This record gives sequence, structure tokens and C-alpha cells, in this order.
Amino acid sequence: MKTNFDCFPCFLKQISRTGRLLGMDESAIWALLKHGSSLLAAMDVDNSPPQNAVAVYDMISERSGTDDPFRELKVQSTLHALAIYNDLQARIKKHPDPLEAAVKYAACGNVIDYGVSDTYDIMKELETVLQQEFHAWEYELFISRLEKASWVLYLGDNCGETVFDRLLIETMNVPVTFVVRDRPIINDVTMEDARQAGLDEVSTVISSGCRAPGVIIEKCSDEFRRLYQEAPLIISKGQGNFETLCDESREIFFLFKIKCAVVAKYLQAGLNSMFFGLSSNRISS
Amino acid sequence: MKTNFDCFPCFLKQISRTGRLLGMDESAIWALLKHGSSLLAAMDVDNSPPQNAVAVYDMISERSGTDDPFRELKVQSTLHALAIYNDLQARIKKHPDPLEAAVKYAACGNVIDYGVSDTYDIMKELETVLQQEFHAWEYELFISRLEKASWVLYLGDNCGETVFDRLLIETMNVPVTFVVRDRPIINDVTMEDARQAGLDEVSTVISSGCRAPGVIIEKCSDEFRRLYQEAPLIISKGQGNFETLCDESREIFFLFKIKCAVVAKYLQAGLNSMFFGLSSNRISS
Repeated sequence: MKTNFDCFPCFLKQISRTGRLLGMDESAIWALLKHGSSLLAAMDVDNSPPQNAVAVYDMISERSGTDDPFRELKVQSTLHALAIYNDLQARIKKHPDPLEAAVKYAACGNVIDYGVSDTYDIMKELETVLQQEFHAWEYELFISRLEKASWVLYLGDNCGETVFDRLLIETMNVPVTFVVRDRPIINDVTMEDARQAGLDEVSTVISSGCRAPGVIIEKCSDEFRRLYQEAPLIISKGQGNFETLCDESREIFFLFKIKCAVVAKYLQAGLNSMFFGLSSNRISS
Repeated sequence: MKTNFDCFPCFLKQISRTGRLLGMDESAIWALLKHGSSLLAAMDVDNSPPQNAVAVYDMISERSGTDDPFRELKVQSTLHALAIYNDLQARIKKHPDPLEAAVKYAACGNVIDYGVSDTYDIMKELETVLQQEFHAWEYELFISRLEKASWVLYLGDNCGETVFDRLLIETMNVPVTFVVRDRPIINDVTMEDARQAGLDEVSTVISSGCRAPGVIIEKCSDEFRRLYQEAPLIISKGQGNFETLCDESREIFFLFKIKCAVVAKYLQAGLNSMFFGLSSNRISS
């Protein structure tokens, strides 16, 4: 997916939000915004939004003097999610279709902002998602693929959400290779973050080799590209991975909440609706 | 009011919206957005948003090859409003307090998007505004000033809205000097637009001498500045005039809908609420 007109204002919003999160003073945030604006002026808009986000977040890291501005937020997100892990596991086990519940909870993990919600609110969200109608729900096709799959390549997204991914991985009961970002970017999961969520206990965790908040195949490691070609089944979490992979020819099950108007329009879906299925560019065979 | 972090994404949204309105193709709109981004990178953020908007809209005019990109929209807005002029006039006359109704309708004129609403919808909006609680409603103070005022300086805002301004001017029954922008910018009222709305029949129409979608005193003509100093009562319509005049020391009655989060936060008011009163920076004497 190419960068859209509406991605430009969104990049600037992300910059000021990150500056505030880092506790930067007003003049430092203005410097970020102006530097960010000059990056927009030179941006290759044929690239996907996550690919273009790399330069933006590199600039923020450089100016703020930290390689991982979201470090504390990521740790807290994972801790919050781990605190409800046992409860979630019990709910999944007693559901008539544990796999369905685990998939829907994993979508829900893409929703919740642990920074603002307490445990009670998370539980309410989780009750809702089981009843919620998804914009796409290719669950039957997914089951048929999963039954034949000897292993699954699982493309991770954000921290905290990873605990929900772990529950889905445990419920699928098939070997999983879980893919993380190569280096910190926004609140996306890295190797260290994945270990905090216990993903190394239930899967083989590897880096994509790509730092973008998405998966840009040509920027990934040879190892990742081989696994990507060979994998009998791929689950891709989150919007960033969808934005970078939606035009790929191979079959990928995307699982995410549609969080922005650009992706909603692309999918002809409602903002905030849930998606579990193939990209419209890929007809299932 | 200085330019806020959130004005930067808003400027970019305005650029792509204007490009679409002008029917420009995708690559031309990208060129606008990139040029606009480079303007942001060099912007003096101590200036008010309307002052900074001038460079943005000058760039759009230059690249689109038109001095008045909103010409047709402005003409249509005024025609739509003129079509309900007689009805509105009758409603004001039969209201228990015609002046109150005229003030509230004039605020409502700052709301309605004639491009998307038909006459019936406008009428519904107008019914609502009479019952609506304003965030500020310094009507009694206004009445006391109006009773003593030999004339009123009325700072205009958008086209279409001008017809509602005309009704308020007729209802006040005091000589009025109506101020328009010096040259076309966005859908703001110019001399030509004011004449289309019939404002020249009920007031003396003058240019501020300033092109910004607001009133930047130091950029206005000597004539305007003299009238601004001498006016016994000033009514300022719209958010752009508020943004440029809210820190001025003289008493000004601002009348507008709070349309953006930056101004809402500045006034500690709800988004979309109505304002009729003095700026909080100016204590009434």
C-alpha cells in the first residue's frame, strides 16, 4: 500500500505525540515537527506508510537521544497484559470453540491501550469482541489451512498484544515461528520484548531483519525471506504488517483492528472494525 | 494566539482538501503537500495560525494557477443563504427578542456547510441554535454596549455566513462598517462577495487591508486601524478573527462556532460549542 495524502498529517501527529510522551519541552517538540516536515517534503510516497515511518522515527530517536523512546511504555504494556494472562487462558479453555476465542482475543490485543485502561476495562473489551461482527472473518478457510500446516509463521506487531499472540499460539497447538522487528521502533515488539511476554517459551522467535513497523520483504534478512516463502501458513498481526504486505501474492491471514481512515477506505470497511482474512488483492485458492 | 503543534497536521489536511476541491490530479496534490511541508519546516510558529495560513494558501494559488480557488463555492454558499433570507428575516421579526435570535442565527451562519445541506437541514439547524446553550453568552453586556454605541465595526468571516451577518446588522439598527479580507483566501468574504450578499445595502463595506483569514492589526490598512481604535463596539465573526485578535487589549465581542481542538483547548470549551463574548484575556470593564 502506498503512502496516502492523509498519512502526511498523521506522521506529524505521531511526532508531536511522541515528543510529549518523551516529556520534551515545547521548543524541542517544535524542532521535531519542523525536522519531520522537511522529511515529508522529500518523502518517496510510492513507499508504504510503515517504510516511510522509519525515517520519521529515526529522526525522533536521534533528536531525543534515545534508541527506544517507547521502552517504558512497552514494558508496562506487557506487564499489564501478563497480569490477565491466566484469566484469559481459562476463558479460552472453557469457550465452546477455544481457537475462535483465541483468534478474537488476539484481534482484541491489537485494540487495547494499556496506558489508559485498567484491568476491568480490558475484561469488558474482551467480552465484547467475542460477540462483535468482524469486517472480514475467514475463519473456516483458516481452519482448513491450519489443519494441514506443519508449522506457522506468525508476524508480531505491538508489545502487550504479544501476550494475546502467545495465547493464540498455545491454542493453535502447532510449531510457530514468531517474527519481531529488528530494532526498536514505536511500541513494536523486538526480541527483548517478545521474551518479556514469554513468547520464547511457546515459539521460535526470530527477527525479520527489518526495522520498519511492518514487514518490507526486500529489506528483510535472507533467513526471514526463506521462511516467508516456505511457511505453509502465515498469520500477520496489526495494521503496519497489513500496509506493507497487502499487495503480496502469497496467502497471508491478516488479523487486526482497522485503526485509520486510509486503511478503512482501502478495505471499504468501517473505522475501528476488526479484520481476519486475506487481502482483497489475494483471492483464496 | 500562537500556532499550535496540532495546526501543522491541520495545514496539510487543508492542502489536500483544497487540491481535491480544485479537481487536481494525484501527482499535483502530492506536489502541493510536499511544497506545503517545506513551508511548515520554515514556519514562524510564534505567528497566529491565520497569519501562517497565508503562505500556505498563496502556495496553493500559485501552483493551481488561480487567485481564488474557492470562487465557485463562495458564490454558491451566498446564493444558498440568500434563498432563505426572507424566511429568516420573518423568523427573527416574530421572535420575542429579535436581536437575540439574530445573534444566534449569525453564530449558526458560522456553522452551516451549504455544500452538503439542503434548505430543510439549514432550517433544522436554525431551530436548534435558538435552544442551544452557548459556551459563552455575554448578551446582557453586549446589549449595554450596543445601546450606547453610535456605530459598530463588524469583522466578517466566510461567504454564505455573510447573509446571516446582514440580518444581524439589519436587526441592530445602528450604522455598521463591515470589514472584508483584502484579497481572496479560502472561502473568506471579499468586497465582491460582500456585495453579492447585499451587505453594501445595509452597511459601509471596507477592506481590512490584510489578506489573512483573520485580522492581523499590524498588517491592516491605516484606515482600518483608525476605525478599529475608534469603534465604540466591535463584533468579530469566526474562529480566524478570534485566533488573530484574542490577545488584543481592546474590548471585542467574538461570535463563532468553536471548530477545532486547538481553540477549544484555549477556551477550555467543548469542540463544536458556540461562543458569544469577550476573550478570556480581556476582562470586561
